[in-house]
Amino acid sequence: MSKKTTIRDLAQAAGVSVTTVSQILNGKGQRFSSETQQHVLKLQQQLNYVPDFNARNLIMKSSQSIGVLVPNIGNPFFSTFIKGVQTTARELKYIPLIFGANHDEKIESYYLEKMIERATGGMIIASASITTETIDSTLKKNEIPYLLMDQNPIVDGDRVQTNDILGGQLAAEHLIKLGHQKFVITMPNAPTANLLRRVEGFKLALTKNSISFEHAATIVYSPMTKAGGYQATKAVLASHATAVFAINDEMAIGLYKGMRQQNINVPTDISIIGYDNIDLDEYITPTLTTIQQPILEMGITATRLLVNRIKQPLIAPQVTELPVHLVERNSTAKPRS
Amino acid sequence: MSKKTTIRDLAQAAGVSVTTVSQILNGKGQRFSSETQQHVLKLQQQLNYVPDFNARNLIMKSSQSIGVLVPNIGNPFFSTFIKGVQTTARELKYIPLIFGANHDEKIESYYLEKMIERATGGMIIASASITTETIDSTLKKNEIPYLLMDQNPIVDGDRVQTNDILGGQLAAEHLIKLGHQKFVITMPNAPTANLLRRVEGFKLALTKNSISFEHAATIVYSPMTKAGGYQATKAVLASHATAVFAINDEMAIGLYKGMRQQNINVPTDISIIGYDNIDLDEYITPTLTTIQQPILEMGITATRLLVNRIKQPLIAPQVTELPVHLVERNSTAKPRS
Repeated sequence: MSKKTTIRDLAQAAGVSVTTVSQILNGKGQRFSSETQQHVLKLQQQLNYVPDFNARNLIMKSSQSIGVLVPNIGNPFFSTFIKGVQTTARELKYIPLIFGANHDEKIESYYLEKMIERATGGMIIASASITTETIDSTLKKNEIPYLLMDQNPIVDGDRVQTNDILGGQLAAEHLIKLGHQKFVITMPNAPTANLLRRVEGFKLALTKNSISFEHAATIVYSPMTKAGGYQATKAVLASHATAVFAINDEMAIGLYKGMRQQNINVPTDISIIGYDNIDLDEYITPTLTTIQQPILEMGITATRLLVNRIKQPLIAPQVTELPVHLVERNSTAKPRS
Repeated sequence: MSKKTTIRDLAQAAGVSVTTVSQILNGKGQRFSSETQQHVLKLQQQLNYVPDFNARNLIMKSSQSIGVLVPNIGNPFFSTFIKGVQTTARELKYIPLIFGANHDEKIESYYLEKMIERATGGMIIASASITTETIDSTLKKNEIPYLLMDQNPIVDGDRVQTNDILGGQLAAEHLIKLGHQKFVITMPNAPTANLLRRVEGFKLALTKNSISFEHAATIVYSPMTKAGGYQATKAVLASHATAVFAINDEMAIGLYKGMRQQNINVPTDISIIGYDNIDLDEYITPTLTTIQQPILEMGITATRLLVNRIKQPLIAPQVTELPVHLVERNSTAKPRS
């Protein structure tokens, strides 16, 4: 293996000083002749010299990176979100550093600290388990710009959100229109603010249609995963509801498995509506009726707002709300009469 | 917002020099009294001083990070792989930097260069589109340790692989045992080395059972995604095969959708076997028979080997092969007689 080319090697080959090379490579070479500048840049190519970023960083005072903290990379919602972040970060000349912390507060703090050590320019936090204390003691203390996703309980700062109340309303109205009168909602027992807004919207639509939420709707608590949906099956069936509002698509997919094992047909025996519109929804049987969140666009917007904040730290708080809408497929139908 | 605490603030508060603080925080404070050391460390806590990593890095000569380059974070195979990498990296006190390059050579080179700039300790490359030229001109030139996954065409260096020939054999033997005589394999038209080995194993099992691969097996080329599997449906049906070997589970899930639209029942009309054993396989209808790859373990092993290589650059090439096995579920059955 050949040795890594150093700035010294490059300076020697070009017959100039290390300082000259450093200034030219950092775009501050105006005082040198354009011949010298071209000569150094050409030799940099030939010798394949990659500036050491840690040294350059001390000069440039920015690492040109943004951190992204998600609960779970394996959830299709977050992998699509990350795709949006990656594409946009690259366009804006930032490197996204992705971390999945699995809702573990300790791991989240650990990753945040590591990112601060690396002089990360800013953070997108798509994890609801982050606490106000962590934000205060790490990000705010070190003046790191950050952006929160709508599931987050913390109120100040930039954020990207969707209209969860409308989402819940759309789900309920669709089921009511089909003729359903008895509902079950599956959701985690420590719901984040955005999930509570979905339930609020669901309730609102029932009230509008003169249906009492207290009498007509049961809530079944279970984790927001495929396994969680599967585990909720018995309680869902015990409620004698004719329609299920699964708080995300992963739970709906888990319910499919549970219903099949109990020989319950979706949608003729029970209707299921999900939330998110992950790409899988079109591939499962029956295809899943759901509320679409603009997931990719959420990643794109979050990245744009954060980079904007890094460049202009003093602008007013930025809040962007993206639309949601109903996607009708085959998992919902009229109740048996 | 309060200002970020600097090493100067900390030195002033402790009544010692910046050099003293620096040496103590970098574990080189033996020549100072233990009172001074404790005093500085305690004040570091109180003032919440996070050492600037870029400065420290120049002293420590290691960024304690590893890069991970995957084609697609959204593919459940890779998100599970990344989970294994993240857990193990954290245990070994390394930070994993995850990048998805979507098989785009330019983006791959871009990310590699960025990681070298950041003095990344080593790279796990799980992308088959990386070229020998890129490896030579970036990683080798800069003496960055790297580890390749088995799908990679490059032969030298450390690697983690699974026995793809055995995987192909297990798939074919399972179908032959059920009584199938006519097969179709769905795979991408520019297959990586490991996919070709799956086909080779499939052929081997046919030959062993006196079935001519040329007469009994058709290959349908399509992308290795859900959409690719779906698009392959017509060609698969045109082959009049009674069993499909989908080269990964995602393709099998796409085929499910295509078959359903054509009113073809899986498995009574046609058997489908996949490859990978992603967690979704248990949730779809019918549950998917597949070849299990130890995906999480691949991530764990890759990380261990790479960190080992970073710490001991001169050891002999490390190659680890992990086992595969058949998982029988409900998507395969006897052919109609």
